Amino acid sequence: MVDLTRNGRLLFGGDYNPEQWPEEIWLEDIRLMKQAKVTTATLGIFSWSSLEPREGVYAFEWLDRAIDLLWANDISVVLATPTASPPPWFTKAHPEAMPVTRAGVRLVHGSRDTYNPAALAYREAARRITRAIGDRYGHHPALQGWHVHNEYGSVSYGPAVDEAFRRWLRERYIDLAALNRAWYTAFWSQGYGDWDEILAPQQTQYLSNPAHELDFKRFSAELLLDCYREQIAILRETSPDVPLTTNFILSTWLNYNHWELAAASDFVSIDFYLDADGVEGAAHAAFGADQARSFAQGRPWLLMEQAANATVKPGRIVAKPRGEILRTTAQHIAYGSQGALFFQWRAGLGGSEAFHSTMVPHVGEDSRVFREVVELGAFIDQLGDLSLEPAGRVNGRRVAIVWDIDSWWATESSSLPSDRFNFQAAVRRVHRALWFLGIGVDFVRPQDDLSGYSLLLIPSQLVATPEQATNVRRFVADGGEAVVWYFSGTFDANLQIIPGGYSGMFAETLGIRVEELLPLADGESVQLDNGAIGTVWSESVQLRGAEPWAHYTTGFARGGPAVTHNAVGSGHAYYVSTELDDAALTALLVMVLAEAGVEPDARGAGGGLEAVRRRAGDHSYLFLINHGNEDRWSTAFGTDLLTGSTYEGSVLVVAGAILVIRESINN
Amino acid sequence: MVDLTRNGRLLFGGDYNPEQWPEEIWLEDIRLMKQAKVTTATLGIFSWSSLEPREGVYAFEWLDRAIDLLWANDISVVLATPTASPPPWFTKAHPEAMPVTRAGVRLVHGSRDTYNPAALAYREAARRITRAIGDRYGHHPALQGWHVHNEYGSVSYGPAVDEAFRRWLRERYIDLAALNRAWYTAFWSQGYGDWDEILAPQQTQYLSNPAHELDFKRFSAELLLDCYREQIAILRETSPDVPLTTNFILSTWLNYNHWELAAASDFVSIDFYLDADGVEGAAHAAFGADQARSFAQGRPWLLMEQAANATVKPGRIVAKPRGEILRTTAQHIAYGSQGALFFQWRAGLGGSEAFHSTMVPHVGEDSRVFREVVELGAFIDQLGDLSLEPAGRVNGRRVAIVWDIDSWWATESSSLPSDRFNFQAAVRRVHRALWFLGIGVDFVRPQDDLSGYSLLLIPSQLVATPEQATNVRRFVADGGEAVVWYFSGTFDANLQIIPGGYSGMFAETLGIRVEELLPLADGESVQLDNGAIGTVWSESVQLRGAEPWAHYTTGFARGGPAVTHNAVGSGHAYYVSTELDDAALTALLVMVLAEAGVEPDARGAGGGLEAVRRRAGDHSYLFLINHGNEDRWSTAFGTDLLTGSTYEGSVLVVAGAILVIRESINN
Amino acid sequence: MVDLTRNGRLLFGGDYNPEQWPEEIWLEDIRLMKQAKVTTATLGIFSWSSLEPREGVYAFEWLDRAIDLLWANDISVVLATPTASPPPWFTKAHPEAMPVTRAGVRLVHGSRDTYNPAALAYREAARRITRAIGDRYGHHPALQGWHVHNEYGSVSYGPAVDEAFRRWLRERYIDLAALNRAWYTAFWSQGYGDWDEILAPQQTQYLSNPAHELDFKRFSAELLLDCYREQIAILRETSPDVPLTTNFILSTWLNYNHWELAAASDFVSIDFYLDADGVEGAAHAAFGADQARSFAQGRPWLLMEQAANATVKPGRIVAKPRGEILRTTAQHIAYGSQGALFFQWRAGLGGSEAFHSTMVPHVGEDSRVFREVVELGAFIDQLGDLSLEPAGRVNGRRVAIVWDIDSWWATESSSLPSDRFNFQAAVRRVHRALWFLGIGVDFVRPQDDLSGYSLLLIPSQLVATPEQATNVRRFVADGGEAVVWYFSGTFDANLQIIPGGYSGMFAETLGIRVEELLPLADGESVQLDNGAIGTVWSESVQLRGAEPWAHYTTGFARGGPAVTHNAVGSGHAYYVSTELDDAALTALLVMVLAEAGVEPDARGAGGGLEAVRRRAGDHSYLFLINHGNEDRWSTAFGTDLLTGSTYEGSVLVVAGAILVIRESINN
Repeated sequence: MVDLTRNGRLLFGGDYNPEQWPEEIWLEDIRLMKQAKVTTATLGIFSWSSLEPREGVYAFEWLDRAIDLLWANDISVVLATPTASPPPWFTKAHPEAMPVTRAGVRLVHGSRDTYNPAALAYREAARRITRAIGDRYGHHPALQGWHVHNEYGSVSYGPAVDEAFRRWLRERYIDLAALNRAWYTAFWSQGYGDWDEILAPQQTQYLSNPAHELDFKRFSAELLLDCYREQIAILRETSPDVPLTTNFILSTWLNYNHWELAAASDFVSIDFYLDADGVEGAAHAAFGADQARSFAQGRPWLLMEQAANATVKPGRIVAKPRGEILRTTAQHIAYGSQGALFFQWRAGLGGSEAFHSTMVPHVGEDSRVFREVVELGAFIDQLGDLSLEPAGRVNGRRVAIVWDIDSWWATESSSLPSDRFNFQAAVRRVHRALWFLGIGVDFVRPQDDLSGYSLLLIPSQLVATPEQATNVRRFVADGGEAVVWYFSGTFDANLQIIPGGYSGMFAETLGIRVEELLPLADGESVQLDNGAIGTVWSESVQLRGAEPWAHYTTGFARGGPAVTHNAVGSGHAYYVSTELDDAALTALLVMVLAEAGVEPDARGAGGGLEAVRRRAGDHSYLFLINHGNEDRWSTAFGTDLLTGSTYEGSVLVVAGAILVIRESINN
Repeated sequence: MVDLTRNGRLLFGGDYNPEQWPEEIWLEDIRLMKQAKVTTATLGIFSWSSLEPREGVYAFEWLDRAIDLLWANDISVVLATPTASPPPWFTKAHPEAMPVTRAGVRLVHGSRDTYNPAALAYREAARRITRAIGDRYGHHPALQGWHVHNEYGSVSYGPAVDEAFRRWLRERYIDLAALNRAWYTAFWSQGYGDWDEILAPQQTQYLSNPAHELDFKRFSAELLLDCYREQIAILRETSPDVPLTTNFILSTWLNYNHWELAAASDFVSIDFYLDADGVEGAAHAAFGADQARSFAQGRPWLLMEQAANATVKPGRIVAKPRGEILRTTAQHIAYGSQGALFFQWRAGLGGSEAFHSTMVPHVGEDSRVFREVVELGAFIDQLGDLSLEPAGRVNGRRVAIVWDIDSWWATESSSLPSDRFNFQAAVRRVHRALWFLGIGVDFVRPQDDLSGYSLLLIPSQLVATPEQATNVRRFVADGGEAVVWYFSGTFDANLQIIPGGYSGMFAETLGIRVEELLPLADGESVQLDNGAIGTVWSESVQLRGAEPWAHYTTGFARGGPAVTHNAVGSGHAYYVSTELDDAALTALLVMVLAEAGVEPDARGAGGGLEAVRRRAGDHSYLFLINHGNEDRWSTAFGTDLLTGSTYEGSVLVVAGAILVIRESINN
Repeated sequence: MVDLTRNGRLLFGGDYNPEQWPEEIWLEDIRLMKQAKVTTATLGIFSWSSLEPREGVYAFEWLDRAIDLLWANDISVVLATPTASPPPWFTKAHPEAMPVTRAGVRLVHGSRDTYNPAALAYREAARRITRAIGDRYGHHPALQGWHVHNEYGSVSYGPAVDEAFRRWLRERYIDLAALNRAWYTAFWSQGYGDWDEILAPQQTQYLSNPAHELDFKRFSAELLLDCYREQIAILRETSPDVPLTTNFILSTWLNYNHWELAAASDFVSIDFYLDADGVEGAAHAAFGADQARSFAQGRPWLLMEQAANATVKPGRIVAKPRGEILRTTAQHIAYGSQGALFFQWRAGLGGSEAFHSTMVPHVGEDSRVFREVVELGAFIDQLGDLSLEPAGRVNGRRVAIVWDIDSWWATESSSLPSDRFNFQAAVRRVHRALWFLGIGVDFVRPQDDLSGYSLLLIPSQLVATPEQATNVRRFVADGGEAVVWYFSGTFDANLQIIPGGYSGMFAETLGIRVEELLPLADGESVQLDNGAIGTVWSESVQLRGAEPWAHYTTGFARGGPAVTHNAVGSGHAYYVSTELDDAALTALLVMVLAEAGVEPDARGAGGGLEAVRRRAGDHSYLFLINHGNEDRWSTAFGTDLLTGSTYEGSVLVVAGAILVIRESINN
């Protein structure tokens, strides 16, 4: 297990770009960093053109000086490989290595991420700059970690991709006939007679082939994994003991395989930008933190990028309410992050992201934002005890939500029965409802070991394998409670429909047969006999062993079951064939949580009062964060790390407050 | 006159794709087809890659077995040429024969319809596979008809098209000066000095030339006709007696010339997908059926594709209400279809249209949908008498609506005075209003013989020739009633404006002069002094012999005539210069129907009770279909083919019911 | 100073395209022109293919005859060079000279403006046809002026542009390091190591570089200026005394530099199409006229194109209310135009703009539109006195609005803090509010001599230089009143943010420090303590010498200043940090107008009663135009040129009326 922290300090700091500034500003930066108790600077993420200004000609001196200066001031360095943004000379020298759009447009530099991950010239250039940086800094004492690339996710088309895609397909299918079956090419005369006839799914006349598209997404994700692995191999040589990561951009990017990239990393790191503020923003932050922790699968994780002062809203920058950055950061640490970094330290004066918020804003240190950053640095400094546990372990969760990248990819098909449906949105909705109930969850793959969980939630996992279905059945039979949402298990791994009834892969466990899919229009809804209202989807469901829990009273499926439950072994499996309104979804979850015997980590948690218990060594630390506008009561036994107050029972968490209690009774 | 039916049976069945299934499923299919009384399977529509897996290498054995199996079970075959979807090998071998978009993007396979109809390699490959299929199956006893291609409509750009377009223009204009005049190239410096300077209307800087665009649409439609004719010539050689068709996709596709393709066919076939359900869906079905029957011009026609269980709505599949498929199918047969086929028989498990509805759904035979299909098969089986009349003749209609492909094409110009205007929508609105009044109509070209009609309706036929105008005038002078809607006859065949007043080609007949076009904004309306409300359009109209029938009381044209009528010879011509609201449109039609002496085919028809009288041999058969939710009364004399009940006067048609009465009094 | 007018006549007429018509129609045109008292026809604007039907082969005879015929009938000619629309032969001969889109699509002829202004072949062809026309007609007595090109504004990409762009950048920056600094290329690894690595900002992966984009806009505008200058040089040789212009298309086109093109011209000409009718249309016309007059900077200007009968509204043509063309034209002349021309004389029967309104409509002379044209001709004929003053001088304005093309270009950046923000819209809003108060304004560049003004308005001028800031400060210190709107002076000339507080370039003069930008969402608003409502934008503003004038009472900036004022020397500078509602904006302007001592040109002006005083020789002419629906009172002393009535005090201007009073007391 790698340990990211140093000298009992969680990481605090951000992306730092000294190459944008004259060196007198560097000294100013050091002064402000010390004022804010910054521990860590991330360097080099977009420095390729500064480090290798011409092909094969390096200019490391500025970086030497910057790292030495930071280290002399007790600030560690996470060093990036700059391969996400090749310099202009690369375009000129290797035009064939530029990315090509689905419509065949060859892009050029002028932004960032202009490279084709399948192009040999790109791969070679990336390896070369990685080795040069690894050789030069791999043993620098300031080096706290490697930060490979930035936000993997580029997808390209064109000849180099076609070639690589065919190679990947040959390995996957061996036999062309197997590919033809998997892709269902007998439809629309798409049968391939030769591997060389296969292309990436470029622009075509009409609807594309869903299995072709899904395999291309798998291939593209693996291509990025290959890129990552090449850099890992080099950095393992140059600096075997330095932990490495690549930063995921959550929660809307899907062009990579989170589980696989995480498995190749020493620690997981995420970039996370809130899509709301207040309590909804906190729910969003919890979602990202739970994803990061789950992808890490027991290894450490780190919040690599967040915004000091902006939520992401369409068409404008939006300031975060005062004090919110403290609560959001505390949240991430409660969920196990080994610290909190920002993009970026100092606001740039130009470039495409000049208005991206920063720790030191354009206006300088005399600013609300920088004062909050200083306050945050002091806060994190007080949490040193937590650094004893490198993995950022939290209390074991008894509820798991299935998160399956194939199902998310499949959502993008243009051939689904409704375009109002999105896997990630379905997952977020269930996670949010649980968060408001104060219940912590893990995300799992459906084939994972589920034995530690009491309740398993499967929100519209479109794609499922027989092995996954067997695993779920075993979980239920062994006494687990499961809830499966509509359309789950409708497709096999090649996006072929399981015949005999939709949701077919799970049908036996659920004791149902789904005869007809009846998706609803925007604004359309159906009533259930338990008072619930369903939107987005409905189905004609028949009972094959299950019992009805609620029926449709309106709509095409009127009179038929809407929600069912089925006893399997010593557990139960629920099926939900429509999108329940908030109250009905919550009521269902309250019921199954009770059946599973799951309760919040602390009394009074939920509805915006977040209670998370993080562990370090032999101790537990209860975070109580009140994201709401009203004071709330909870219960705690122990001493607040921040104030030194001790609690032996009821504790008032005032609106907006954060308590971090080292518990006297270990929970 | 060809006869599609066999042994007194109307056609019932659908597209069948045995190449997608193992042969044990074929036997299952046969069992279910017999259960549903299927008479006909359509094969081969997308089978090119299965029949010619490599260029020039054929694999007919599976098709031999499939056809033999069907025929052994008394199921006939309509065999398609698979030329709408070339296999992947074709792209690889002939990249220059791929379609090119207006913006110059060369498309590739991965969907269907990836070919350039002007490319020699495509044409040659299409002829070759057609001849191979014709040679092999042209004399098979199961062969009931040829189904050439699928849904002609592809448009391409690029060098091969430019070349063919120039050839077509040379033939049309002979003299380049004539083309320059026709295209009004003196505007914007577009004068051509050499034929070779002419290109298809690709992406350009700003507004394109409307006459150039219109000629390109004409050319593109003729190019498809040429493709069709090449296949016809081959199939006539291989199997002179087998009737052939190509299936039109109604009612939104416009990249072909319906009248011309129909004239080249032995029978007309249509693919028709409802855009609504209930009574509005029935009105839509009637529109398609009237179009098909009219395009056929006395030859047989056939509903080649419909959906067993879905209306076309944006972004999702939508189930048809129970029983509706029976009514919709009955409707098509009432209007003359020689049967009813579906796309497709068995639901595929993969591919882009896996959720396209089918006769045998994913869930299998134990399903509402398949039970309705069996019910429908029994229904059609009872209508064998109707097969005596190959042409599917219906009672002579006395009302004609002008349907002019040039005017529809012209609607797509970006240079019209309003973008809220669409020819096809204007036609549908008039057809729908008449259908709700229980009045059957024919569609005609304005140059057709109109002598059989009493009432002629011209809904915004933008483009008109002097011959057409003369024909309309003669019709009116000879005692006909005509109604002409705004903007009709404003352009000549080259989209040049007739000077001296808009709607100029018909102005003399109408007795008006239209000085100004005053199209209305979304949400804008004008009042008329007869209580009507006008939207979309208004005009400043002056009387030149006509009398006003209604005036504008608001808007720019306030005080001027909105609707006029003019006596010409022994007939009358109305002009409607705005889009009347439903009630006002209906009132106008009621009046002119009365003047023309036109009445429904049966008492009580209209408002969702459909009454259509189809003929077979010496008999008439009255279809009474109640699409509404309330029971309705009508009158009939004869015996119901379905129940054997006899009627001698009043007859109650309960909500949702279908009566097919062989009449004792021939009407 | 050139004089456009002849024989005491203001110009009246329009674009005339004899090449579209048989010569018998020319005679008809002459008859109608004389009836309408037309003085001027503009020829040749889109005649390239008619004048040079094949490369290097000319056909001038038709134009000789047309010009001679006009001149024989006392109609002068403004002759265009037809370079805005190369003929089809040009595409074929020089495919490399076609424009290329940002995505790399090479456009072709079929519309107009299909040329790449950086292509040598285009430049050469343009020079050749210009010289040929100049040689042939430069000394024709009918020639009243040269009209070079049409509506400059084409932007292209591709190799020829890349090359020219690099040349331009080398001249601008000399040193590549300077360019790297100016473009802030250290961000996102965009550092250039060689000039040849630089491309025009084509399609790239993600956000483009704002400074790169801004320089490309500057370059593209200068490229057009180069094209213009080449033609000017030729025409100065062929006809040294003939005044020349190029017509601007106002008010939405921004691909050229209005100030620079104007400076190269002998007189300014504009194409102006109203976006509204009634009083709002009049406000729009005033905006265009003030822009044209200001761009001309003391030289004459001319309304080159307007529509006889249409305002520009989305998706349809819209008739102008009766009488409005007279008022709008009078307005332009009041503001200094040397006449009023139209696009175009006679309605074409085909082409892309067949429904563009004209002086002679499709319906011919017996029409409302032509009758209004005749009335207008008579009106203009009565204003001959005004032709004595070639420059069309109006009374000196004491209010100036800053209009800065860099700031407009900068608005198009995708990297601003809000996409609801547009410089031109901000300017129009301020101009409109002043117009409704009856106050005339000049537009100025912020570096211009401001000494003649009492009040300076700076509506969100994003980009500012230190010189401009100093000029503004000096203006205020010298006793001027200034109002600066939010975000002004936030960027330097390279779109780099001035650190230390937004609006930084003007911060010292304003006495403020803007700490945070808080743009608002659609539908979001904030309250101010003076009752105002703010939308679009808000800010956290701190006082650094200024005093608050209004505070925010809601929103993130609650409690902070919203509007401030600062005393500097003997003047004052206001800062407005949000978009005030109409009433609050008006109230603010009323206050600063009072402080500046500025009043309307006539009593009662404003709210739709327009009062403008134009000068000619020693006289002043007061235009009183009532655009509203209610009669209004004003004051005048003198004789109406139209009616001969004399006024010695109060004068009633009835709704819709126009008075042009030669004043007895010179104002």
